[in-house]
Amino acid sequence: MKINSHYLELQDSYLFSTIAKKVAAFGESHPDVEIIRMGIGDVTLPLCSAVVEAMQKAVAEMGQKESFRGYGPEQGYDFLREAIVAYYAEHGVSLELEEVFVSDGAKSDVGNILDIFARDNQVLIPNPVYPVYLDTNIMAGRSVHYLQADESNGFLPMPEESVDADIIYLCSPNNPTGAVYNRQQLQAWVDYANKKQAVILFDAAYETFIQDASLPRSIYEIEGAKTCAIEFCSLSKTAGFTGTRCGYTVVPNTLVCDGTKLNRLWLRRQTTKFNGVPYIVQRGAAAVFTPEGQRQTGEAVAYYQKNAAVMAGTLQKKGVWFTGGTNSPYIWMKCPAGYSSWEYFDYLLERAHVVGTPGVGFGENGEGFFRLTAFGDAEKTKEAMRRIEVLG
Amino acid sequence: MKINSHYLELQDSYLFSTIAKKVAAFGESHPDVEIIRMGIGDVTLPLCSAVVEAMQKAVAEMGQKESFRGYGPEQGYDFLREAIVAYYAEHGVSLELEEVFVSDGAKSDVGNILDIFARDNQVLIPNPVYPVYLDTNIMAGRSVHYLQADESNGFLPMPEESVDADIIYLCSPNNPTGAVYNRQQLQAWVDYANKKQAVILFDAAYETFIQDASLPRSIYEIEGAKTCAIEFCSLSKTAGFTGTRCGYTVVPNTLVCDGTKLNRLWLRRQTTKFNGVPYIVQRGAAAVFTPEGQRQTGEAVAYYQKNAAVMAGTLQKKGVWFTGGTNSPYIWMKCPAGYSSWEYFDYLLERAHVVGTPGVGFGENGEGFFRLTAFGDAEKTKEAMRRIEVLG
Repeated sequence: MKINSHYLELQDSYLFSTIAKKVAAFGESHPDVEIIRMGIGDVTLPLCSAVVEAMQKAVAEMGQKESFRGYGPEQGYDFLREAIVAYYAEHGVSLELEEVFVSDGAKSDVGNILDIFARDNQVLIPNPVYPVYLDTNIMAGRSVHYLQADESNGFLPMPEESVDADIIYLCSPNNPTGAVYNRQQLQAWVDYANKKQAVILFDAAYETFIQDASLPRSIYEIEGAKTCAIEFCSLSKTAGFTGTRCGYTVVPNTLVCDGTKLNRLWLRRQTTKFNGVPYIVQRGAAAVFTPEGQRQTGEAVAYYQKNAAVMAGTLQKKGVWFTGGTNSPYIWMKCPAGYSSWEYFDYLLERAHVVGTPGVGFGENGEGFFRLTAFGDAEKTKEAMRRIEVLG
Repeated sequence: MKINSHYLELQDSYLFSTIAKKVAAFGESHPDVEIIRMGIGDVTLPLCSAVVEAMQKAVAEMGQKESFRGYGPEQGYDFLREAIVAYYAEHGVSLELEEVFVSDGAKSDVGNILDIFARDNQVLIPNPVYPVYLDTNIMAGRSVHYLQADESNGFLPMPEESVDADIIYLCSPNNPTGAVYNRQQLQAWVDYANKKQAVILFDAAYETFIQDASLPRSIYEIEGAKTCAIEFCSLSKTAGFTGTRCGYTVVPNTLVCDGTKLNRLWLRRQTTKFNGVPYIVQRGAAAVFTPEGQRQTGEAVAYYQKNAAVMAGTLQKKGVWFTGGTNSPYIWMKCPAGYSSWEYFDYLLERAHVVGTPGVGFGENGEGFFRLTAFGDAEKTKEAMRRIEVLG
């Protein structure tokens, strides 16, 4: 038997375990210090009551013979898909039910979507990047071409005519940088993808954080996107579902390659290798899209947005260069005084007792940069920024 | 951009949609007839109260800041993995925590496990077979060699020395045939796999239906299995989780290929492409393994086992050849009077108003055979068998 040897080409990822070790060591030698964590991209507010009530009701249904549900459709129940289609319609995007696939989160679908593509495809990935985009392609034996994101382009790389592409990863608002593409920039990407007959894998996991109404929240607000883009959405940050697991993936009917509809391929992949999201979770997800659910989850998002504003305010005062913070829960700041990412990590931990994520952990172009997240407690966030403000 | 052209080699699966059409048509033309469905492999009894209570408690926790949980470990929470390790220990199998991976069901893991193997592997699949084993390999561009299961071997094919193999699928108790391998037969398979340096993908989804204490419930009851087998288990039939989605996959530390531990490859695959099973569902799953959960889920399994006994009793009376029924919720019967599978389907529907699944839908060797499931209502099952008894 032979293993997939590409797995041996994967870099071991020590980013978060190294962070954890350093923080644990510091905590042990400084037991009276309050360490404030702003590094992990995980929510801290609980599920809202609309979601909790919907799930309690669904759990009760599952305990009664008359209302019990067994296997559901792999692509998700219509009650949820209809709610998602309606949500898109409110934002000016018209979708068919069959274009919507309920997922257990963007991470799974962003990884598994590669199943429907041949190995022989040129992949474009931003640098710095969410590591899943890179690792899943290495596992499949593909080499990747990096889109250079840096200070000069505000970490918003644009297409280069001379570069061919088949599969293009765009994440906007971006993880880790918080940078957001505007309408013209996304139009340029869509035009490029259609010209090159490429597919854009558009990660919209942070779309609800956009406050600037001129910025697109869905790739399908861009003309021509339905022939070249798959969109991945998630309730993880939108509704606090990081531990509850639900999202949705849109594969338009007009996304065709050599006469084959990608929608049909994804349907086949999911009906063969997946058995759907739990009924209980789908009821919770559907509650997010009700008026009350939208209001309540909006409050949680606003809480995080306030944190981001506090963080952005402090960095602006200090004259630190950064992206993100206004339309994203992430701030991507340039390390002061020529510090490297890890040097700044150590400095921030030792002098301010604040934990962030070294940008170099997301790729070469992250060297000299640092990510802070707005998902923490509001008071602790203010305290953390007070400590950072007085730092040299 | 190029699609994975192997998807075009997949057979379109019309088995269940054809069944649904025929049943709908019959129902329309015979509105006063009570059609009894014994074709779908889905449970009908609700979740037991121990599971419901555990999930209600977990939902409430998720609604409170102090007890809210975000991202969990991708391989599952320790509280559940420990319960699974204890369950195995009760049955004489000793496992390490890290050998256990919580899944969202056997279907996902049985499909996704192929990610860690090279394309260039010889695959053995039984015929007839659960279609996922075949389709997932076609998608990956592998050709498969069939293990001939038929009446002469009681649908329990044995290894052939002259046949090389790298990846071997065994499902016992079997879907669709209900046949169960005994200890010596599984020992022969394990010895063969170790000799050929192959891996057995052992699907134990129906292990709780085994009533004969001499029959193995886990492949790891067999000596030598830990160097050649991955086991896939599911709470779908065991605890009615078909719509709740939870199972577990065991990859032993001693399963090594060319110096690489498959356990590490699977961990990497899951940490890269999966974000874990919902916390709420894992609490429900853990409740299954408590003494009360075992008692309650055991009652549901016993209910289905009684159905299977009723079905087996009638067929025995009629002198029909069949496998399954005693240690499985499936009965795989030979169609009488030389009927083909579909001819018998039509005959049973028209004359007895009972729906089953034509064996040919599971592969060539299923031609002339027919699957009935024991998951239905007890009274309707008895009625269905009364109707079948009086048939010619």
